[in-house]
Formats: sequence, C-alpha cells, structure tokens
Amino acid sequence: MQGSKKNVKHPSYSVVVSASHLRERRLWRFLTNMLIRLGYDIQFDVIGEVPIVTLLNVHPSREKDLREADELSTDPLVPIESYQDTFGNHACRLLAPAGKLRLQNSTLIEDSGVPDIVCLDASEVPVNQLPPAVMPYLLNSRYCEVDLLSSTAAELFWTAPRGWARVQAVCDWVHSKVTFGYEFSNPVRTALGVYTERVGVCRDFQHLAITFCRALNIPARYATGYLGDIGVRLDPNPMDFSAWFEAYLGDRWWTFDARHNVRRIGRVLLATGRDATDCAITTSFGRARLISFKVISDEVQGALRTA
Amino acid sequence: MQGSKKNVKHPSYSVVVSASHLRERRLWRFLTNMLIRLGYDIQFDVIGEVPIVTLLNVHPSREKDLREADELSTDPLVPIESYQDTFGNHACRLLAPAGKLRLQNSTLIEDSGVPDIVCLDASEVPVNQLPPAVMPYLLNSRYCEVDLLSSTAAELFWTAPRGWARVQAVCDWVHSKVTFGYEFSNPVRTALGVYTERVGVCRDFQHLAITFCRALNIPARYATGYLGDIGVRLDPNPMDFSAWFEAYLGDRWWTFDARHNVRRIGRVLLATGRDATDCAITTSFGRARLISFKVISDEVQGALRTA
Amino acid sequence: MQGSKKNVKHPSYSVVVSASHLRERRLWRFLTNMLIRLGYDIQFDVIGEVPIVTLLNVHPSREKDLREADELSTDPLVPIESYQDTFGNHACRLLAPAGKLRLQNSTLIEDSGVPDIVCLDASEVPVNQLPPAVMPYLLNSRYCEVDLLSSTAAELFWTAPRGWARVQAVCDWVHSKVTFGYEFSNPVRTALGVYTERVGVCRDFQHLAITFCRALNIPARYATGYLGDIGVRLDPNPMDFSAWFEAYLGDRWWTFDARHNVRRIGRVLLATGRDATDCAITTSFGRARLISFKVISDEVQGALRTA
Amino acid sequence: MQGSKKNVKHPSYSVVVSASHLRERRLWRFLTNMLIRLGYDIQFDVIGEVPIVTLLNVHPSREKDLREADELSTDPLVPIESYQDTFGNHACRLLAPAGKLRLQNSTLIEDSGVPDIVCLDASEVPVNQLPPAVMPYLLNSRYCEVDLLSSTAAELFWTAPRGWARVQAVCDWVHSKVTFGYEFSNPVRTALGVYTERVGVCRDFQHLAITFCRALNIPARYATGYLGDIGVRLDPNPMDFSAWFEAYLGDRWWTFDARHNVRRIGRVLLATGRDATDCAITTSFGRARLISFKVISDEVQGALRTA
Repeated sequence: MQGSKKNVKHPSYSVVVSASHLRERRLWRFLTNMLIRLGYDIQFDVIGEVPIVTLLNVHPSREKDLREADELSTDPLVPIESYQDTFGNHACRLLAPAGKLRLQNSTLIEDSGVPDIVCLDASEVPVNQLPPAVMPYLLNSRYCEVDLLSSTAAELFWTAPRGWARVQAVCDWVHSKVTFGYEFSNPVRTALGVYTERVGVCRDFQHLAITFCRALNIPARYATGYLGDIGVRLDPNPMDFSAWFEAYLGDRWWTFDARHNVRRIGRVLLATGRDATDCAITTSFGRARLISFKVISDEVQGALRTA
Repeated sequence: MQGSKKNVKHPSYSVVVSASHLRERRLWRFLTNMLIRLGYDIQFDVIGEVPIVTLLNVHPSREKDLREADELSTDPLVPIESYQDTFGNHACRLLAPAGKLRLQNSTLIEDSGVPDIVCLDASEVPVNQLPPAVMPYLLNSRYCEVDLLSSTAAELFWTAPRGWARVQAVCDWVHSKVTFGYEFSNPVRTALGVYTERVGVCRDFQHLAITFCRALNIPARYATGYLGDIGVRLDPNPMDFSAWFEAYLGDRWWTFDARHNVRRIGRVLLATGRDATDCAITTSFGRARLISFKVISDEVQGALRTA
Repeated sequence: MQGSKKNVKHPSYSVVVSASHLRERRLWRFLTNMLIRLGYDIQFDVIGEVPIVTLLNVHPSREKDLREADELSTDPLVPIESYQDTFGNHACRLLAPAGKLRLQNSTLIEDSGVPDIVCLDASEVPVNQLPPAVMPYLLNSRYCEVDLLSSTAAELFWTAPRGWARVQAVCDWVHSKVTFGYEFSNPVRTALGVYTERVGVCRDFQHLAITFCRALNIPARYATGYLGDIGVRLDPNPMDFSAWFEAYLGDRWWTFDARHNVRRIGRVLLATGRDATDCAITTSFGRARLISFKVISDEVQGALRTA
Repeated sequence: MQGSKKNVKHPSYSVVVSASHLRERRLWRFLTNMLIRLGYDIQFDVIGEVPIVTLLNVHPSREKDLREADELSTDPLVPIESYQDTFGNHACRLLAPAGKLRLQNSTLIEDSGVPDIVCLDASEVPVNQLPPAVMPYLLNSRYCEVDLLSSTAAELFWTAPRGWARVQAVCDWVHSKVTFGYEFSNPVRTALGVYTERVGVCRDFQHLAITFCRALNIPARYATGYLGDIGVRLDPNPMDFSAWFEAYLGDRWWTFDARHNVRRIGRVLLATGRDATDCAITTSFGRARLISFKVISDEVQGALRTA
C-alpha cells in the first residue's frame, strides 16, 4: 500500500468521533499511517552574548509518535537547557555566543495521515463549566484584543449557530475577508490590525479568529508547528513553520485554520499559547539577526503504509 | 500571641538588606505587627445569566496570615466554585442570575506592619538563569507591548545602574512623567498609551513600568490588592483596590509601585499576573453593570501592637 | 407670537428644499425667527508666554445674522490678531502672558428658528464631479482613519440606499451603537477608538460618522459651535460647545449630528474642518491649563417673534 | 541660453548662507544648471468605474523651469480635469473605466544643480508671528500624531539649539534610529508606529520628523516628488517617487530629508501637504490595483552644462 493513497482527495473528509465510527477510524488509520521527516536549519548572526529560547521540539502531546530522537543541535556547541514552559511546551534555552549560530535538527514522526478532525457535534461549553486551565484562553492577550473587538464579534457572529458551526463561521469570515501575502508580514500587527487592514500572513488570520472566538466566550489558543503540506497542491513558497489555532468545544481542543480554511493532513504541533508571543519558534533576549531559515516537512514515501 | 510564630516564615522577612540590621528589624517587627480589617461590597446589575470570575480572596501566599475566614458571600445566594487559577491566584467562579448581584466579605489579616522591603543588593538575573516559571514575565502581554517600547526603554534606562537601582529608575521616570487622575481612567489604555498620553490611574503607571522592565530583560508582573493606606496621609478619594507590580531580582519577586513610588505599609495581595487582564477583580462573561463599589482596608487599632 | 411656539415638538420636522415648499418655508421662518444670546467665559492658567489660537467667533457664514458685535475680550488685555484660517473660519491669535487669562464675550444672533433642514432628495455626488475644495473631506485625517475603517463601512452601509438615506443610516448606526458619557472623554480617541470602544462624547460620535461617510465616498467635515438647546428637553449638564458634522450631498453641505440624531433648532456654527484638530475652540502652543469654562446659548424670550 | 535668466528669481537662491559666499555660489550655479528628464509609466487594473486623482504634475512652483510640456496622458484616452488643490498642488482628476489603465508622461525640467540649500541662520518663528497659511502645519494629521509624541519630542529635543540646528537634530535622530527597508513598507503606519517599530520606508522617516518638528512648534509639511539621484551613488533599487519634508524657518520653507539626511541635487517637487494622505501620487476612490510602476529621473548629460 503506497503513499499514493495520500493523493486521495479528502480535504473535507470528516472523521466523526461518535462511538459507532470508532472501529472504522482505527482501520482507516492503520491504512493511512505515515512517516514524516521533520527538520530545520536556522542561522543567526548574534551580537554579544544573547540568551535564546526555542520552541523547536515537537509538542509533548506528540512525543509518543517520534520515531527518531528530537534534539536541537547547535553550531558552535553550547549547553542547552530543556524544560516544559508554563504553557506545556517543550522549550530549550541557551546562551548564544557572539557570531554565527546555527540551530539544526532532523527527526522522524509517525502520523495518522488523517486530516484535521471535524466534529460538528462539539458544543460550546458554558464559561462556568470550563476547566480552570482553559479559562485564560478567553481573555485578552498581546495580539488578541478581545476588549476591542467584542462588539464586532457579537454583531458578526451572534446569530450564527452555536458550537462547531460558529467557530467555522468565524474561520469562513476571516478567510474570505483577509488577503494573504508574505509582503504583508508585520510582527507588531494585532487582531485589530488584521480587522482594519484586511491583509496578513498566517499568524494574522489566526489572531483575528482567536479574538473573535474569545469574544464569543469560546476559548481559543494559538498553535504553531509544521504545516505538513501533505496531499495538497504544492505551495510555490519555501517551506516555513505555520500557525493555526485551537478552539475548545465539548471536552477538548480542536484544530482550526483560518488561513487555509481546509482540513489538512500532517500538521505536527510544536507549541500552543495565548498568541504568537507565547509560541515564537525562537525568542532572542538581545540582538540576534536571522540570516537563514529552512524548514523540512516531507512524507517518507512508502515507509509505513506498506507495513 | 501566637501569630508571631507564623511570621517567622513570612516571605517578606526572608531577605534582609544587610546582616548588620537583622536584630534591629526583628525588634521592629515584633513591635509593629498589626491587624487589618479587609472587606468589600460590590453590586452589579446583571442582564441575563452571566458567568463571573472573581479574584477577591487574599492571595494564597497570605492565607497563613488570615485571622478570620476569607469567604465571598453573594446575595442572592449562588453556588461558588473556588479554584487556583493558572497564575496561582485564588479564583471564584459563579453564575450570576439576572438582576441585582451583591458580592461581600469582611475578614481580618495580620500584617508585619513593615513597609515594602528595599533590597538595594538584589541583582538582575541573566535570562538564561531565570526559573522557567518566571520566563513569561519577560514577554508581551495585552497592556504591556514590550515589542513597541523596547527601543525607548533602552534609550532611557540602558545606562542606569543594573539591578534594584534600574527598576527604581524606571519607577522614578514613570512616576515623574505621568500625571495621575481618576478622570483619566481608560480600560483599554496600554503601556504605549500611557507613554504617549502621560496620564492615567494606578494600573497605567504599573503597565508602563512593567513594560520597561521586561524590555530591559527584568521579569515584571502586575499585582493587585488592598493598598493599605496605613501610616500615610489620608487619601480624599474613596478606598479602592489598587495595583502595583513586582520585579524579579536575585531569587524572588519584589514589590514596586510606580504610581505612589513610596514604600507602603499594609499592602495585601490578591492576585498577580501578566497585566490587568489576568488580575481583574471581577471578570464578567456577559453584561453585568457595576452599580456600587466599596472597599475597606483599616488597621484595627491597638489589637496586636499592645500584645 | 411667543417663544412658546418653540415648544411645538418637531424634532423630525422636515423642511424639504423643493421649490414648491419655498414660500411656505419663508413664511414659517418669518414666524419663527428668534434671537439667541451667545457667550462664553473661559479661564486659563498660563505657564510662561503661550501663543493661543481661538475659534470662538461665529463662522463667517453666520456673520450676517449677528445683532451685536462678536468680539473676543481678554483679561489682561493683550493684542488680538484676527484672520480667516485655511478652512474659512474666523480665528484669533494672541500671546498669553504668564498667569491667569480670561477669554470672554457676549453677543446676540438672529436665527431662523427652523430645525436642521432635511432634504431627502439630496444625492451623492460622483467623486469626479465634486468641487475641488470639497475633495479633502474624502481623505484621512488625524481622528478619522478612513483607511482603517473602509472595509467596515462597506460591509455596514454599502447596501443602504444612496444619498441622504445613507448618511442617515450612518448616523443611526453610530447613535445606536455608541454610548454617550462625559466620563468617556478622551482627547486622543480616534474614529477607530470609537468603533472599538463604543463609548464617547459628542466629538467621538461625529468622528466615527465622518469616517464612515468618507469611506463611502461622501465628503464629510467636522463642525463645532453652540448647540442651541432650544426647544428640547433641558440637559442637566452644564452648557458646553458641541460638535456635529456636515455631509456634502447635491450641491451643498448639510448638518448631521450622530450624537443626538435629531434635528435641532438654534445651532450656531463656529468652525468647520477635517476633524477636531482643525476646529479646537482654543489651541495652546505651550502650557495653558483650563481652569474654568462657561458657555451660554439662550433664546431671548419674545424678542423677535413678536415682531 | 535663456533658461539661466529665469533662474534669477528662483526662490532657492534668495537666501544665501553668508554674504561672503555669494559670488562663488553664483558662479557655481552658472556652471551647474542642468536638464533632467522626468517621466513615469503607471498601470492599474481597474474594477468598475473608479475616480482617480493624481498629483503627477510638477508643483506650480517649478512650472517655470519646465522645458517641455508636462501633461498626463492616459491609455485608454479619458477626459482629464486639471485643478489646483487646496494645498496648492497641480492635481488631475479622471474617471477610470473598467480594465487596464495606463498613466504616462515624459517631460524635461531645468534645475539649478545646486544641492538642497543649507541656511544655518534660519530661525524658528514664534507661533504668533507665523503666516496664517502656515499654521495648519503645526497641527495633528493622519500620519503625524503630534498629540501623542509631544512629550517625547520635548524630552529628546528641547535642549537642542533653536532654529535650523534643531530641525537638523530631529533629522539626525530619526535617520540614526530608524532602519530603512522596502520590506517594512506599511501604508497605515503612522509617526507613532515609526517611533515604536523603528523601521520604515522614506515616508515613514519624514512622518516622524514632521511630527517632532510640529511638537516643537516648528511648522513642517510633507513633500513628494522625484528624488533626483543626481551626483550620488547609484541606488540598486528601481527608481520610485520619494518623500521628503519641509520645515518653516525664517520666512520660508526649507527642504529636509530624514531618510537620506544628506543634501541632494535635482529634487523635483510634485506636491506638499500635511502628510502622505494629502500627497498621494494617485488616490483611487474605488478598486484599482497597481500592476506596474516605473519612474524616470535622469540628468540629460551635457545638455546645459556645456552652454
């Protein structure tokens, strides 16, 4: 059974979580499991000694799927401190010496090959019944000014059907109203900026969607990782890490993507947080200029499906 | 006088400015322990059923000092769920029914009577040596745009002596440049707004100071609580909860207050967080109009000092 | 015919400009002409010598209606330079000496007593047919970010009937969505701020309405003057200058007021401009603190209507 | 060589830095008069009928230097209405039909060949002595928030020597603190945005410098035109229109350029105004997508200097 199976066009495939389909889903997963080669090669020009924090390891929730070690290597060699940050991400911290610094890794992960799951029945949870750990994802954050966009959110989405459909309505609106372009990249643009300028890159789409969800009392958080262009038309742009978001419905977080607004195969999560502030791939506490950036996320053809 | 035993481990006393003053301070502490009556009476007009989260209980770090129960009571009676939020604060959550809602409490706390401690020797910690739990307090948050004020912070404070003196320089600058006035209250004003408008209420002063500290790689977090007007000139304004901030130097968080910029006696902490978003006394997830607000924080005269 | 006529409730009285009603309108005006006493008493505390520009004289378009001299007097006496500013307003410029400065005047103006005219037939003018002098009122200005609100304006009003009805739809929206309150006064709030915060004072309402109109290619400008509380329920607040706006439809500027959203009697125009920047009653180029502010705009009972 | 006669009254020459250099400069002028070929080729894709206003003609103050006609031509041919706008610029207005629209011109202008004049003696004019027409250039505008940056301007420049040196100090600061890059282009960035982000394109540099000048009570206005890369190192980027600014000192407007911060030869002014809003090369009142943009500004070698 070859990798060609991935070419089956199922962008809107909906895996329903009801018990009745559970067996079927297991079967399908068995058929579609795949291996993805992940990697990056990032180079900085560092002025002075600069502490750097990375979120380049796969998220703890995906560690069980790793088939190779997932370890950041640096050139020159520097000590790396690994810890779980307050959002539950796998962070690394190092002190970059002056000069060139290269961050590299290559690892292998097994993936279900199933597109982002759709669960139309997932319902909104009353605020007073949400798990306490979820509560912060209802509030303002740096790039998500819930206070400034709550009236607009109500005007646009209050009459939308509650639950999954409402989050989807938010994604549809953002996807259709905002124009994507790398030339629109602006690291200080907030959700309000996206709403007013109607342009942006992937993080901008998610920030606006997250803000609308929170304003509607639906917890939403930012997610970053390997997008996994598996089974979709090739993107002419160089591979990059991507952003999407998660909304809390029913009893768990679900993946949404206001930028692409399609169900994708092969996303590999690196980090979640309130917004891009918490999920920066690298945060430099000093002057470190990015001079090169490469990301790899490729299906390893035939590796697993033939099993 | 059993309360004095508990005070032995009071975190406020664990760091002494210099060994030579240790005896003197202990004596003074013995003389100055005091009891403070705390309370509030807050009324809302609620439209529809509205979930409300409160941060009206004293902070877990001060629970050992309580001499009476510290329990939120509501009128009408509604179930209250009590939990520790992700920032370590004691939160309560309730579902307010439509109509009038009254939140009340009165409790008694023992306090050292010692002014906010000064520790001129407390030094800045290199970012790569900070405890992971402290790291988020270096980053952007809704009302603290570190990204937008980092150049200004560097221009204003880079040459200031490192450590305690630098945080104090930040407080001095903010205190002298910003004009206080209740008429300047604006719930959506950010640190950048404070920097440009140069007016504000207590939270605004702290947001700007916090932002400058973070831009200088000094962790800083927002704090809210009873201000404790003990031993200071009477404020003609009605009592209110107040905001101050904490900076991380050496091995702990220290109290600073860019609004008053003096060492105060009798602060009682309720909550800490990234900024005012995380520390709102009450957060309503729906329409609840504040119609009355009273806060009490009075020293109980003679109660303890005569012991 | 007494002033009691003013009590006739005609907030929505519509004077239609069509030729057929012209005679009738003249007759009505003859019956309703009134005299209004205008005045102000403004005091500053000036630090150093401060140049001040005032727009306290009635607009040149109303000079023909003056029945007394309209001259700014100052205490202490200082030379006053009078000139027409680039927007066609009657400006005065003076150099205030250090210390107290008092600006005063009292004058008398005749007014038609007719409410702001409604002309439902006034149509939108294609941009390429507008008089060149009107063109700037389609563009961005300090408090009217047309660029940031153009998508919102299109989404809200593109389907509204063109012409007068569309400007009225803008006023209706702003009036119903924004909450008025003196406590919401914020001199740096822009139209976008009004849109996001949904609170404000009179200038805020007009800024948002102006911005929406411009985004719809309808020229709109800010207007300030005596509101003329004639024939309306007494406002419990102290009299103040007010702001409204003018939209260009057909071949002229028409009065609209998104704050009150009713047709008023007795407005007396002082100044027009792009936004509040151009129409400030006083602009101080240095430190001058406003310490007292009184405005008078009262109908002189029986003075003219009995004629 | 008749062109040299016209130059006698050229405003650029009416102020000489010191009497002692008068003869030398005259000689230099004679030697350096030059001809510059100006032109542009701009193409839009127009959706629907869209009114467009252009400011593509040389400024009226330079019309006397034209050696060829300066006429906008369009493809397809459409009627063009030419008028002087409220800022004194030569505007053209047309109604673009749906589809491709091409705007073209080529003209020839004589230029003194003298670099932007420096007049160190030009002094600041007290606000109360400024010509009324200059007053608006002290106030806020869309991209120049004088109200938000006045404290910063005072803190940075209040102690700078008054007059020319102060404007130069503003230019030096902006030039040294802001990083230029086409990738930083952002049409909605204001002076405050430049101050906080410290990146931008030419218009951003000027907006911040203009705002600081106004905050210091020095009138400043935005200028756009052909930069004239004459006598300077070749810029690898394609030619574009550029922005600079003018400050009012003594009795006239002087050219400054916070982006390049050097005195340039061969600038040809197109338009001045409060900020980029008033000076847009083209303003489309509808959907017109820019698809091609070419600008020419080349010295015609040997044409005049050999005379």
